[in-house]
Amino acid sequence: MKQSQLFTKTRKEAPRDEESKNAQLLIRAGFIHKEMAGVYDLLPLGMKVIEKIKNIVREEMNAVGGHEFIMSSLQSKDTWTDTNRWDDDIVDVWFKSKLHAGGEIGFGWSHEEPITNMMKNHISSYKDLPVYVYQFQTKMRNELRAKSGIMRGREFLMKDMYSFSIDEKQHEDFYQKTIQAYNRCYNRFGIGDDTFVTFADGGAFTEFSHEFQTITEAGEDEIYINREKNIAINEEVYNPKTLKSLGVTEVELEKVKTAEVGNIFNFGTKKCEEMKLYFNNKDGKPTPVFLGSYGIGITRVMGVIAEKMSDENGLVWPESIAPFKVHLLTFGKNENVFREAENLYHDLKNAGIEVLFDDRDMGPGQKMNDADLIGIPYRMVVSERAAEHGGVEVKKRNSSDVEYISADRVISYLQEGGENK
Amino acid sequence: MKQSQLFTKTRKEAPRDEESKNAQLLIRAGFIHKEMAGVYDLLPLGMKVIEKIKNIVREEMNAVGGHEFIMSSLQSKDTWTDTNRWDDDIVDVWFKSKLHAGGEIGFGWSHEEPITNMMKNHISSYKDLPVYVYQFQTKMRNELRAKSGIMRGREFLMKDMYSFSIDEKQHEDFYQKTIQAYNRCYNRFGIGDDTFVTFADGGAFTEFSHEFQTITEAGEDEIYINREKNIAINEEVYNPKTLKSLGVTEVELEKVKTAEVGNIFNFGTKKCEEMKLYFNNKDGKPTPVFLGSYGIGITRVMGVIAEKMSDENGLVWPESIAPFKVHLLTFGKNENVFREAENLYHDLKNAGIEVLFDDRDMGPGQKMNDADLIGIPYRMVVSERAAEHGGVEVKKRNSSDVEYISADRVISYLQEGGENK
Repeated sequence: MKQSQLFTKTRKEAPRDEESKNAQLLIRAGFIHKEMAGVYDLLPLGMKVIEKIKNIVREEMNAVGGHEFIMSSLQSKDTWTDTNRWDDDIVDVWFKSKLHAGGEIGFGWSHEEPITNMMKNHISSYKDLPVYVYQFQTKMRNELRAKSGIMRGREFLMKDMYSFSIDEKQHEDFYQKTIQAYNRCYNRFGIGDDTFVTFADGGAFTEFSHEFQTITEAGEDEIYINREKNIAINEEVYNPKTLKSLGVTEVELEKVKTAEVGNIFNFGTKKCEEMKLYFNNKDGKPTPVFLGSYGIGITRVMGVIAEKMSDENGLVWPESIAPFKVHLLTFGKNENVFREAENLYHDLKNAGIEVLFDDRDMGPGQKMNDADLIGIPYRMVVSERAAEHGGVEVKKRNSSDVEYISADRVISYLQEGGENK
Repeated sequence: MKQSQLFTKTRKEAPRDEESKNAQLLIRAGFIHKEMAGVYDLLPLGMKVIEKIKNIVREEMNAVGGHEFIMSSLQSKDTWTDTNRWDDDIVDVWFKSKLHAGGEIGFGWSHEEPITNMMKNHISSYKDLPVYVYQFQTKMRNELRAKSGIMRGREFLMKDMYSFSIDEKQHEDFYQKTIQAYNRCYNRFGIGDDTFVTFADGGAFTEFSHEFQTITEAGEDEIYINREKNIAINEEVYNPKTLKSLGVTEVELEKVKTAEVGNIFNFGTKKCEEMKLYFNNKDGKPTPVFLGSYGIGITRVMGVIAEKMSDENGLVWPESIAPFKVHLLTFGKNENVFREAENLYHDLKNAGIEVLFDDRDMGPGQKMNDADLIGIPYRMVVSERAAEHGGVEVKKRNSSDVEYISADRVISYLQEGGENK
C-alpha cells in the first residue's frame, strides 16, 4: 500500500491525559485513536495488527475443534439471575441501561451465562457432546480505573471459548489441549519466551485455575517464576502448600511483574447445574455438563507487545503481527530513483510480500522517524546514496545493522528469512 | 465441511414469541439464536452469510477509495452536545449508562459525531481532502418495538461510510459514485431488480436524501415506483412538487411496501461547522468540510433476503451469499455409496467449491427437509437410487427440476454455472 493513500498520521505528542506507554506509542504511530479513558478506536494500521492476532488465534482454536460464532452485546437480566451474577455487589463492572419497552438490560462483560443458556437448544443427549465454541467479541466493563491504555479497556476485544464436556476426563483432556494451543498462540505472537502458564486461584470449583502471564513492567500482576522448571505461581496462591504441591522452594523463584494475556477456567458442573443445562446419558439419566471457559485478551495482547517490543524511537513489531513486512522508503526528487522504488514496490507486492511504500513528498529525516515510530520489521531505502552503496539499504527494525542489497536480490533475501548470504 | 461437525441444529418450531418470518426461518434453520426481542446471536451458518455480505460491501467500498477502520461503541456525552443530539427528546433510541468513575456514557446508535470529532486529528489542510472512511460496526438502538426480526434489531451490524470533501462538487462526485457502488452491492446480493434508489426527505441540509428500498411485504416503508423510468419516491416526499421535479405523474407510479436496506445523506457543511471541523484552504483560510454519510444495514440485508428468497420449505439463498454452494447428501447404510459420497466431497473441496456434506446417520426425509430449510443453492444426492439413474441427483434450491449427472462431471457442471449440457 502507498503511504500517501493510508488513512493514518503520526503525531509528535500523545494526548496529555494518556499515561500508558502502549497507548502513547500506538496513538503517536497512528494505530489507534483515543475516545476517552479506556476506550480506543482502531485505525487502519491497528485493525491490521488486530486481524493478524485474531487469525493466529482463529487457526489455533479451529485446530482444537472450536466452532466460531458471535453472541450479542445486549444481555437480558434473566440470563444472569440463576447464577446470582446480575447483582452489582457481586459483579462490579456491569454497564446497564433500561429498555424503552420496559425492563433492564446489560452490556456483555462476559458471555458464560448467555452461552450456557443458548446451549440448552443444542445439547440434550450425550451424542451432542463434547462441543467447543468461541467468538471474538467486544466486551464492555465499567472499570473504575482505566490507566493502562489498551491493556485494560472499558471496551476491548476478547476471544472467549467455551467447552461443554460429558465428564471430567473429557473436560480435562480438552483443558490440557487448550493449554498447548494457547502456548502456540503466544509463541506465534513473539512473546512465548516471556509468557508463563501460571497457577492462580481456582475459585469455588477447583484448587487452581490457569492464567497466561507475560512479563512486562506495565503489568498489574506479580507472579513467582522459575524459568528452568517452567513453573509460575500467582501471588494470590503463593504459599507453602502451593510450593510443596509443585515441588519448588522459595529460593528457586523469582518475583516478576506481569500482565495476564489469557486465562482458562474450570467450572466443573456447577454452572450447568445452576442454569439447568443437563444431557441424557446413555442410560437416559439427566446429567449436568462440564463447562470450561478460555479467554485471550486480543487488544490486550497488542498492548503488551507495544509495551515490550518498543524502544525510544517507537514500536518494534514481530513479523507475525506487523501491519506490513516491509517499509519501503524513497528519498529526494530524482525521478529515476522514484521509479526504481516504485518498481521494487510492485515486485514486492507481486511476490505476495506486504509492503508499505512511503511515496510522500517529505524529507528523509521525517520518513525515517515515521518508519521507526510505526515499527515495521524491514526498512528498505531506495535513494541515490543507497545506489552508490550498490543497491537498496536494508535495516531490520530490531537491529542497528545496515546492509546494502541489490534490488534484484531483495525478494530472495526476504524469502530466505532476512539473511544476507 | 461435514454436517456432523457443524455447530447448528434445525428446529421444527421457532420460539413462540417470534413474529417475523425472517427470524422464524433463520432460527429454525440454525443461522441465528434469539437472545430477546430485537437481539440475535449469529451461529456459524449465520456468520458465514454475514461475512459474505460484508466482503461484497468491503470490495465495493474499497473500490471507491474507502479506508476501513473501527470506532468504539462507548461514546462520550461531550461528542454529541455541540450538535444537540445527546438529548433523549431529540434522539429517542439512545442506550445510556453511568461510568463508575463518574459521568454519563452512551452506546453508539450512530457514529457521525465521533468520526467527525476524530477527523480533527487528520484534517487540517486542503491537502488532507478528500478522505473516505468506513467501518462494520455493531449499533445499539433502544427501539420501542422490535417485531421485525433481524430487519430491525436493537443490536445490529451496519456498514457506515463517511466522506469528507473539500467542496460541493467533490462531495457530489463521490455521492454519485457511491450510488453506483451501492447498486453494485444490491445486484451482487441478488436483490438488485427489486431495490430502488428512492428520493426521501433531505432534512435540514438538502431537498432530498437517497434511500435504497427493497420491495418486500415485511417492509415498514411505502414508496411509489416506476420500473421503466427507474424512479422511486418515498411516501414522505410524495407530493406534486416532487413528482413535477422528477418528470413523472401519479398514474405512472405503483405503490409498494419496502424495507430500507441503505441510505446516503448529505450534511453539507452544517455538521462540520457545528463541530468545528475546518481545513485551511489554499489561501490559508479556515473552511468547513463537506460531510456525507452512507449506510448499509448488513444484518437487515440478510433479513430482507430471508423474507424475499424463501418458500414454504425454507430459505433459498442466492449463490453470492449462501453459506455453502453445494449441499451434498447421502442416504442409506451402503458403504460403497457412502464412500462415493465422501470422494465427491473431497473432489469438490479440492476444486475450491464450498460444500456442506450431510454425513449424519439420519433418514432421507429428514436430510431432504433440512436441506430445503437451510437453502443452499445446489442439493446433490449420492444414493443407490441416484446411481441407478446414472450418477448424482442434482436439484437447484430455486427450481423443482431434478437432473442426474455422472460424478466425474459434477465439477465442470458447477464451473459452467449449473447448466447440464
